[in-house]
Amino acid sequence: MSSTPSTSSTRRRLVIIGGGFAGLNLAKAIDKKLWDVTIIDRHNYHCFPPLFYQVASSGLEASDICFPFRREIRSRKVKGTNYRMGDVKDIDFERKEVKTQFETIPYDSLVIAAGTTNNFFGIPDLHKHVFTLKSVSQAIRTRNEILDRLERASITKDPAERARLLTFVVVGGGPTGVEIAGAMGELKRYVIPREYPGIDRDEVRVILVEGTDSLLRTMSPRSGADALKALGQLMVEVQLGKSMKTYDQGVVTFSDGSTIATETVVWTAGVTGESFNTEGSDVTPGPGNRWIVDEYNRVTGLSDVYAIGDISLHISEKYPRGCPQLAQVAIQQGNTLGHNLNTGRFDKAFEYRDMGSMATIGRNRAVVDMGKTHFSGWMAWMVWMCVHLMSLLGMRNKAVVLLNWIVSYFTFSAGLRLMLRPSKYPLRSYWEDGQ
Amino acid sequence: MSSTPSTSSTRRRLVIIGGGFAGLNLAKAIDKKLWDVTIIDRHNYHCFPPLFYQVASSGLEASDICFPFRREIRSRKVKGTNYRMGDVKDIDFERKEVKTQFETIPYDSLVIAAGTTNNFFGIPDLHKHVFTLKSVSQAIRTRNEILDRLERASITKDPAERARLLTFVVVGGGPTGVEIAGAMGELKRYVIPREYPGIDRDEVRVILVEGTDSLLRTMSPRSGADALKALGQLMVEVQLGKSMKTYDQGVVTFSDGSTIATETVVWTAGVTGESFNTEGSDVTPGPGNRWIVDEYNRVTGLSDVYAIGDISLHISEKYPRGCPQLAQVAIQQGNTLGHNLNTGRFDKAFEYRDMGSMATIGRNRAVVDMGKTHFSGWMAWMVWMCVHLMSLLGMRNKAVVLLNWIVSYFTFSAGLRLMLRPSKYPLRSYWEDGQ
Repeated sequence: MSSTPSTSSTRRRLVIIGGGFAGLNLAKAIDKKLWDVTIIDRHNYHCFPPLFYQVASSGLEASDICFPFRREIRSRKVKGTNYRMGDVKDIDFERKEVKTQFETIPYDSLVIAAGTTNNFFGIPDLHKHVFTLKSVSQAIRTRNEILDRLERASITKDPAERARLLTFVVVGGGPTGVEIAGAMGELKRYVIPREYPGIDRDEVRVILVEGTDSLLRTMSPRSGADALKALGQLMVEVQLGKSMKTYDQGVVTFSDGSTIATETVVWTAGVTGESFNTEGSDVTPGPGNRWIVDEYNRVTGLSDVYAIGDISLHISEKYPRGCPQLAQVAIQQGNTLGHNLNTGRFDKAFEYRDMGSMATIGRNRAVVDMGKTHFSGWMAWMVWMCVHLMSLLGMRNKAVVLLNWIVSYFTFSAGLRLMLRPSKYPLRSYWEDGQ
Repeated sequence: MSSTPSTSSTRRRLVIIGGGFAGLNLAKAIDKKLWDVTIIDRHNYHCFPPLFYQVASSGLEASDICFPFRREIRSRKVKGTNYRMGDVKDIDFERKEVKTQFETIPYDSLVIAAGTTNNFFGIPDLHKHVFTLKSVSQAIRTRNEILDRLERASITKDPAERARLLTFVVVGGGPTGVEIAGAMGELKRYVIPREYPGIDRDEVRVILVEGTDSLLRTMSPRSGADALKALGQLMVEVQLGKSMKTYDQGVVTFSDGSTIATETVVWTAGVTGESFNTEGSDVTPGPGNRWIVDEYNRVTGLSDVYAIGDISLHISEKYPRGCPQLAQVAIQQGNTLGHNLNTGRFDKAFEYRDMGSMATIGRNRAVVDMGKTHFSGWMAWMVWMCVHLMSLLGMRNKAVVLLNWIVSYFTFSAGLRLMLRPSKYPLRSYWEDGQ
């Protein structure tokens, strides 16, 4: 009945900021008889970032890859965990409490698992003009805007406006950029010719821009090369060695002085750790706004504070710039920290077991690296689908995603081209920024 | 290639405002060899209003009951129809053209099939404070707000605020009001005890208020009585003979002077036809902002202008106040008008064949009237589900809705409790009101 997390004298209070892969897996691993666990998340659902790009490209519905925390905390492994909605803005390390827009929550041990957000590298007002894919809400917005461009291009008679509306620029050649560019290439190749009689396929340009000289740099060189080829087949123009300088008045300007007139820029060029106002300590995050941790994910210089997942940075011999910011790392760190907090002995150092990495570029095309093995094409695509399907939370979600994929495969269509958004009244200020 | 609806000299231009049941069925029935048909709709999808309440109560996802027009116009019966996104604000009957926020579209014949919107009966600012169910966007917003109340009630320690957050008032005892109140009763009865440990079920109040002395007045008295009983079983408080006067500062005041403190009012108390600025004619809509038509759905006093569906009003001996505003009427009118426009002879007067009406009140409970026959309970619920499932557009949607219903049935859960909304940047003024 109490509305605060219970403060039983025998259990220590563990507060986890963020219910993503890292936070939720920690909540699963930890012994709820020893720890009074509270997950705080600004959203009321756990979600699956690797498929955000499919939400943006109308292949999946947002709800297919989201799972309500309230539902999850009924499940066997997570049972007993408290969930609190809220956006943690302030952490007081001295008083041992965190503050959301609604309340102050005390902790005995704190786990920072808040993940990352977009990095706009200080380009002024960029966040107001580009579309992003770092949350479900951002993916829904990106979908709405892409669909809007196609409808407005079907209407306008002004050739310059039409060209601007039908030019889509994706910035960043990492997995997210490659995947969304591929999905938009499919839209161009398969959907537009059949469903937009007012648009000629050749009018549509999908341009992927990457600052370095290859795609998918976190994967093997062969994967990057295969992705480049697959994108070409989907009629995506890839421009390497170019970085974006400004985006103003509908014109993107690049480092080499070239420009593109477009109304749609999808920004996937960088991430940075979520920020907090901190009190009671001089310890601040390191490079990339990530909290520097030791091999047990203990934040260096603070006691009873841990960081796991994308927001943590553990520099080791094998990973001198920290582990890659991947779901697998987050899951494994959550599990290991759970073990160490359960025993209290901190006898198990975190070591990343690389299960491989992969990216998909439209139907029948994907690239997979597993250890030294690389493969691509249909087989890689099947592996990609199985791995992602198995990783989704909940049977309902698995079934709906599979159904949507099957329907899309046979209809060559992105069936969910819906511009859905909640109506605006009444406005509630604390929901205004709907991240 | 042209971006305007083609204006072939042999085909006359038929413009349909609104792609709901009426407009879409007309587009199906009409001969595209004789008519150059354009559907204008503010949304890029056809949707299914009878299930909006399930979107609001987290039982279905919005995309389950929406179907993109672009996809639909590939289908055999609709093929050849043009779709234009836009919100028609102005009609010029003299120049024979309609205006959206994007363009001016000329017509030879015009069909007004824009449906209805909420009627707030002139209560000042009410639209800013209550939640409604007349569009998918409104249903998504209503869902977000209901879920928000439960989360905030789990947090707050102030008993008065807590009571206000956990009091849900539904105004209007028609099918929509009864159905959403029933769904919220299920939330109270089945979901809250298991998933909101910080909330006691008895703290939650769901109150249905109706101005007259019975529920479901468009149906048989037995249906109204059965619905009343079923709502009681779901712990919904029904207050009859009371109408809402004001809603200010979180307090609803009723006609009898009584008040309820609440942060959530779901308004289903009335509808009114969508409005247009009209030029070139003195003809204006009749009662309920509905366009008065003859037995062929021709708008009285105008030539080449028709109205079908909820926005039309045909006064006959059998229906002295016009046909009920139901999906079946809209579908039948669309079909009949299509026939008359095809032959050009207007030899088939519209006559409503009443196929019965029904409403559902939670799991295993529904009421059905078919002619003089009335039945309720599990059998009625099965009939209700079959009829609604068959009426949905698209196999994917049918399959996903069925899957969601089966999962909910066995888990006693509303699986889609997600507060999803697009992120706010960049703001585009023409999407601001997201109806």
